[in-house]
Amino acid sequence: MDEPSRQIVLAALPEGRLTTDCFRLEEAERPEPREGEVLLKVLYITLDASNRAWMQGPTYRAALKAGEVMYGRALAEVVESWADGLAPGDIVFAETGWRAWATMPGRLVQKRERTEPLTHLLSVYGISGLTAWFGLTEVGRMQPGDTVVISAAGGAVGTIAGQVAKLKGAGCVVGVAGGPEKCAWLTEALGYDAAIDYRAGNVRAAMREVCPNGVDVYFDNTGGEILQAALFEMANHGRIVCCGSVATYDGPATEGGPRGVPGLLVTKRLTMEGFIVTDFNDRRDAALAELRGWVESGALTVPEHITEGLEGLPEALVGLLAGENRGKRIVKVA
Amino acid sequence: MDEPSRQIVLAALPEGRLTTDCFRLEEAERPEPREGEVLLKVLYITLDASNRAWMQGPTYRAALKAGEVMYGRALAEVVESWADGLAPGDIVFAETGWRAWATMPGRLVQKRERTEPLTHLLSVYGISGLTAWFGLTEVGRMQPGDTVVISAAGGAVGTIAGQVAKLKGAGCVVGVAGGPEKCAWLTEALGYDAAIDYRAGNVRAAMREVCPNGVDVYFDNTGGEILQAALFEMANHGRIVCCGSVATYDGPATEGGPRGVPGLLVTKRLTMEGFIVTDFNDRRDAALAELRGWVESGALTVPEHITEGLEGLPEALVGLLAGENRGKRIVKVA
Repeated sequence: MDEPSRQIVLAALPEGRLTTDCFRLEEAERPEPREGEVLLKVLYITLDASNRAWMQGPTYRAALKAGEVMYGRALAEVVESWADGLAPGDIVFAETGWRAWATMPGRLVQKRERTEPLTHLLSVYGISGLTAWFGLTEVGRMQPGDTVVISAAGGAVGTIAGQVAKLKGAGCVVGVAGGPEKCAWLTEALGYDAAIDYRAGNVRAAMREVCPNGVDVYFDNTGGEILQAALFEMANHGRIVCCGSVATYDGPATEGGPRGVPGLLVTKRLTMEGFIVTDFNDRRDAALAELRGWVESGALTVPEHITEGLEGLPEALVGLLAGENRGKRIVKVA
Repeated sequence: MDEPSRQIVLAALPEGRLTTDCFRLEEAERPEPREGEVLLKVLYITLDASNRAWMQGPTYRAALKAGEVMYGRALAEVVESWADGLAPGDIVFAETGWRAWATMPGRLVQKRERTEPLTHLLSVYGISGLTAWFGLTEVGRMQPGDTVVISAAGGAVGTIAGQVAKLKGAGCVVGVAGGPEKCAWLTEALGYDAAIDYRAGNVRAAMREVCPNGVDVYFDNTGGEILQAALFEMANHGRIVCCGSVATYDGPATEGGPRGVPGLLVTKRLTMEGFIVTDFNDRRDAALAELRGWVESGALTVPEHITEGLEGLPEALVGLLAGENRGKRIVKVA
């Protein structure tokens, strides 16, 4: 008989900050694919701050409930196929959840070309890289010479977005991150022109100092106080790219939003725009081609933060929410 | 000797709500124009909620200070001209302040074609009408069939915006206003499909009832609780036109903004965009031509709320902030 599977269940919804106690590792039977389905061996699971938001309530998907296998996106290998167009050995991207083996309808998995390393399919060629690319170019309408500020700059999206901004000719690219080491890494390893340590205090004063002519594009991955500071430091006709609000995910839903909305939007004629990367699926190939060119020429560094073992997923997500990661956080499952 | 002038001074900045006690009527000498200037006889002064915002701090202009003649925009007649291109009898739009006579550099006044009635130059063919037109079409990108919600719907901008939305093919146009009489007037006299009385309580529930498929364009003149409600009732990919925030002008600057910023912007892929109508000056003629066609054919009703006498300006502004007006509030000075 085949070895059994394993899975991680959200045992209890977090009441305050997420802890590893909210999860439970379970043995499970390896599932059997039915007509139209594939059996998947999960190779890598990608972690995102949005995983925590799914616990707060419905977003672009239904809210997670206690007792469910934790939602999650993965890179997997097809082991058995009863679905058209998919064969054993194929690499696919799928929402398998946090499990070692999964069955899924063929129409819900997306075939991917093998890439070396495979993990790039989850970072620079995955949701993070495309989010950085479309957020800056399409939503932020970044122009050469612009002053660009990016929050959660050391995260999966921020590490790519800062480099894409420079490669597209931004005048000054500023990252906001937690702690002096991460800030030094942004400027030394990733080409950021300046970095602001939000833990050091007055973000708004620091932003004004490094962006004396105002911020043209603010790529917001955090919401909260950093968004608040940016609203006040935006240049007239500036664009705020609303990508995520990690500052507000790890706790109860917040009561209020940033001061200056809508007042500063009017007086400075700002645009705030939210987006989800899949809205741009029709232009995905063009973005990927540009990213691939930069990676292959060495112009774009792809930081990945990979740990091993399905059982380490809860700790990896808690760490990500605490700001521990550098670049794309991935867990190698098999 | 010529009759003297009169002016109204902001005697003290308001601490809470604006009252007529904050103003003082003064006699003043009639000013003498110098080289390059015109002498203006002020005919009509236009009142806007933004007049109150100028007292809160710098906006797109310097903050008003106690002791200054109250800022204000007017329609005036040139009585004497030492400026090129301007002659006695010309009608001009200018920031004269709240005074009966003013001198101004010729380059700071805008000549206008005489129109019958002249007050239309301050309402439908002035800032209010153009704000409604550009806000809906350019900022809100309204499409035929859209569900449109407009706050302060009985005000100078709202009364025009609702009708422009219908004329441009909106599927359903909903106004938010204070009190059952004003709401009835919106649907009976101005063609709104439905009206929500925000004083009656749960704006969000009411909005959901009349917009069961969500709001495609929310034209926000108020900010505050109505914006908050709209954020939750927006349809995916909806546009919020940030035109003003009258709910927050008449008091101290607010501490927080609406809940759901930036979270709901991301999950629903909303756009919030602030604008000032003068940003669209290059396309002003096209907008005016369309508005003029509708007014002349009788398709567009232009509500104006006109009182007489310079001394009545403080009361008119206080009344406007309290939501008393219907349509464009104007004071006839001479």
